[in-house]
Amino acid sequence: MPTSPDFRRTGPFAGRTVAALGQDLRAGRTTATELARQALDAVAGLNPALNAFVTVDADGALAAARRADDELAQGADRGPLHGIPVGVKDLIMVAGLPVTMGSRHFAGYVPDRDAACVTLLREAGAVIVGTTTTHEFAYGPTGDRSATGPSRNPCDTSRMSGGSSGGSAAAVAAGMVPLALGTDTGGSVRIPSALCGIAGFKPAYDAIPADGVFPLSRTFDHVGVLAGDARDCLLAYRCLVARDAGGPPSPSVPGHAQGPAGPAGREDGGQARVAWLDPGGLFAGDARVVRAVRAAAGASWVEEEVKLAVDLGRELRDTYTVIQSCEAVAEHAERLAEAPELFDPEVLDRLRVAAEVPGWRYVSAVAARERLARAAGELFGSHDVLALPTVPITAPLIGQRESEPDGQRIAVRAALLAFTSPWNVLGLPALTVPAGTVDGLPVGLQLVGRPGREAQLFEVAARLPLP
Amino acid sequence: MPTSPDFRRTGPFAGRTVAALGQDLRAGRTTATELARQALDAVAGLNPALNAFVTVDADGALAAARRADDELAQGADRGPLHGIPVGVKDLIMVAGLPVTMGSRHFAGYVPDRDAACVTLLREAGAVIVGTTTTHEFAYGPTGDRSATGPSRNPCDTSRMSGGSSGGSAAAVAAGMVPLALGTDTGGSVRIPSALCGIAGFKPAYDAIPADGVFPLSRTFDHVGVLAGDARDCLLAYRCLVARDAGGPPSPSVPGHAQGPAGPAGREDGGQARVAWLDPGGLFAGDARVVRAVRAAAGASWVEEEVKLAVDLGRELRDTYTVIQSCEAVAEHAERLAEAPELFDPEVLDRLRVAAEVPGWRYVSAVAARERLARAAGELFGSHDVLALPTVPITAPLIGQRESEPDGQRIAVRAALLAFTSPWNVLGLPALTVPAGTVDGLPVGLQLVGRPGREAQLFEVAARLPLP
Repeated sequence: MPTSPDFRRTGPFAGRTVAALGQDLRAGRTTATELARQALDAVAGLNPALNAFVTVDADGALAAARRADDELAQGADRGPLHGIPVGVKDLIMVAGLPVTMGSRHFAGYVPDRDAACVTLLREAGAVIVGTTTTHEFAYGPTGDRSATGPSRNPCDTSRMSGGSSGGSAAAVAAGMVPLALGTDTGGSVRIPSALCGIAGFKPAYDAIPADGVFPLSRTFDHVGVLAGDARDCLLAYRCLVARDAGGPPSPSVPGHAQGPAGPAGREDGGQARVAWLDPGGLFAGDARVVRAVRAAAGASWVEEEVKLAVDLGRELRDTYTVIQSCEAVAEHAERLAEAPELFDPEVLDRLRVAAEVPGWRYVSAVAARERLARAAGELFGSHDVLALPTVPITAPLIGQRESEPDGQRIAVRAALLAFTSPWNVLGLPALTVPAGTVDGLPVGLQLVGRPGREAQLFEVAARLPLP
Repeated sequence: MPTSPDFRRTGPFAGRTVAALGQDLRAGRTTATELARQALDAVAGLNPALNAFVTVDADGALAAARRADDELAQGADRGPLHGIPVGVKDLIMVAGLPVTMGSRHFAGYVPDRDAACVTLLREAGAVIVGTTTTHEFAYGPTGDRSATGPSRNPCDTSRMSGGSSGGSAAAVAAGMVPLALGTDTGGSVRIPSALCGIAGFKPAYDAIPADGVFPLSRTFDHVGVLAGDARDCLLAYRCLVARDAGGPPSPSVPGHAQGPAGPAGREDGGQARVAWLDPGGLFAGDARVVRAVRAAAGASWVEEEVKLAVDLGRELRDTYTVIQSCEAVAEHAERLAEAPELFDPEVLDRLRVAAEVPGWRYVSAVAARERLARAAGELFGSHDVLALPTVPITAPLIGQRESEPDGQRIAVRAALLAFTSPWNVLGLPALTVPAGTVDGLPVGLQLVGRPGREAQLFEVAARLPLP
């Protein structure tokens, strides 16, 4: 049970959707400047307890907000994100702001160019409030190891936000901003979204450009969005898909699933069919969480129940671990050799273990991923969307690495990643939405679909009988 | 100095080109059946000394030859390889013949389908005489470790043929067949061709399909051709490029050089410009070999002399070693775990060393290769073709692993691969042609060009003032 103060929905943007804010802006009921000031005040008030933001750019935010107001006044409307305050994860480059990757290696680093997704944000008229706490180098799903301190769960500040985009999730969940950017290599958008009780969307691989995002594991890294509800995720996602693409691109990256043909008759925009994926083949977590999510989701929209073979679950997990380990160490080899003492000790230990993974296992894992991606279509038999819990446990305490929800020991990191990383391996779009609570702590429902069919996830989310 | 008997050019196909044989066939001066019998007799006579062939398919060859004769008699002409006897390396699948990969692991293995390149050979009317000795699993440039025994150099049977396509090179050099197929992962076509005094061609990556070829290192494996001279290599190559391609394909494989734009004015089929690549940046071998090749090549057609930065040479070598090691072990992981005793001890040792290469180094090497391939165009400044020795030493004795040509110690395996493997890393087409002898042992000149411009290599070879 939460014992610390509950900061959830205490900020000015709690319960206000991006869509509603946009209506208020255009109706003259508020201004971008007023929204920016509200966000800045909220950060000033709430951040000491939550550590969601690392750097606040008050001047930049107010200047951007004024520009947004001027443009609107002149009839120049950049669309749904025009004038909306946004937080950006502290490893996505924002020109002129310190970006630390949560690491002492980058203390004082100020990029001189925006990441591609930040450029898209600015072009959409969004107002960047500041950078949000990341687990060091995004190398951890707990969100509690960072040179800038752990981000804290607004529902219970003694608990982890989840990670690695923990600051973005905490900022949105507390209502400091209505929207934030994160990155998701094995679940880093969806895990903190679920643990903090908000919505988070990881698109198909490469759908939102990753240029200018500090890499964790290049072939798994995805840029994603966090917001109060699924509709706002969709709205932001549509603004972040590269402009010249004219829509979500079909990724053609080896080892990532292409958009396979759907069940007959579903291309016409009719209701997507949903199957519940029994997550037992992936991980044995807290059975209460699985039951709660299944119950909260209700029965009416689930047309089928499917199981993942235990072998397939293991292969997906092993493939993820091997590829992510080798790719992460490749990014950090020079720092590991030259200044290991600047890493957080836990991150350093994990990198050193990862450095031992032999190369032939990477080669085999890449081959396995290509085989799995080709077979990904088989996951979608007569249905369009898979539903499962986002995370098989509720938020552990900050620093906790083992939990015993049912008397059985659970490794926290493995649990956090268990239900999300398979979709990074396959490059499939996945959305998490709030699905109630267990012991007063949020749990999330995850919807997984096919590349090019992202809209189905949101259509299904809109039909959910959720609170 | 050679001390053993010299079997070079002792067989019936010595000095007879595929082109000339084709004229004889069509003029009625010989028949495919007669050519097949000559090849079979030559194998019977010479193979005990050379061990070039592993399995001879007399019945199959004679049947194919009769078909070829019948077709020609009926006016059905399949082109330049029609009726020509060919040897096929013992790890390229030939349906119905034992294919051993030079390994006890595959003793008794008989594939039921032809490799794609064998299908193309058959469609071109070639007569497959049998399979030729390979270094075990093609994992070695010496050609002297195989469950089927070492292939021997026809110039001196105490010396190695070079490898891994040693049997193919020895068979052609001795005149047992006019043409053979090999594979080339780091030089396995060009090294034995140079050491045995024949021509060998490794096309651009994926130009000849590798389906049905037992892999050594999938992203480096190339199918190539060995023949008495460059013209025959070109002739065979044109028959082996996949039929529906309508010509050599432009490979679009990540990490392999695309055909970059050439120097101005060279697209018109004018004479290609040649630069001599000082190989000092790649390896310090036997200086006499480098001098001999440079001298044999003459000065008239070399328009420029270029150097490879030592750093670039090292990066190419490291990239090759890391990628090849990891990919090779990935192919053999199961055999290494379950029946290591069936490997040749040297091959086993090398695989075990390769198994220790960490995965992050593979990831870094793949990134380096992509960077190098993008920069490959810079190798070709104002010239079209690079010329350098094929191998920096002459054929060592069978089993020899160190040599001291100038009083300095040279590691034989590293020396053999030093001038050939860079072009596998970059996926560039490379041709070796005989360039005289040092101490009576053959040395080769290597010509390296750009994908899609293979013809330039042969045009340059035709202009060579070579013996």
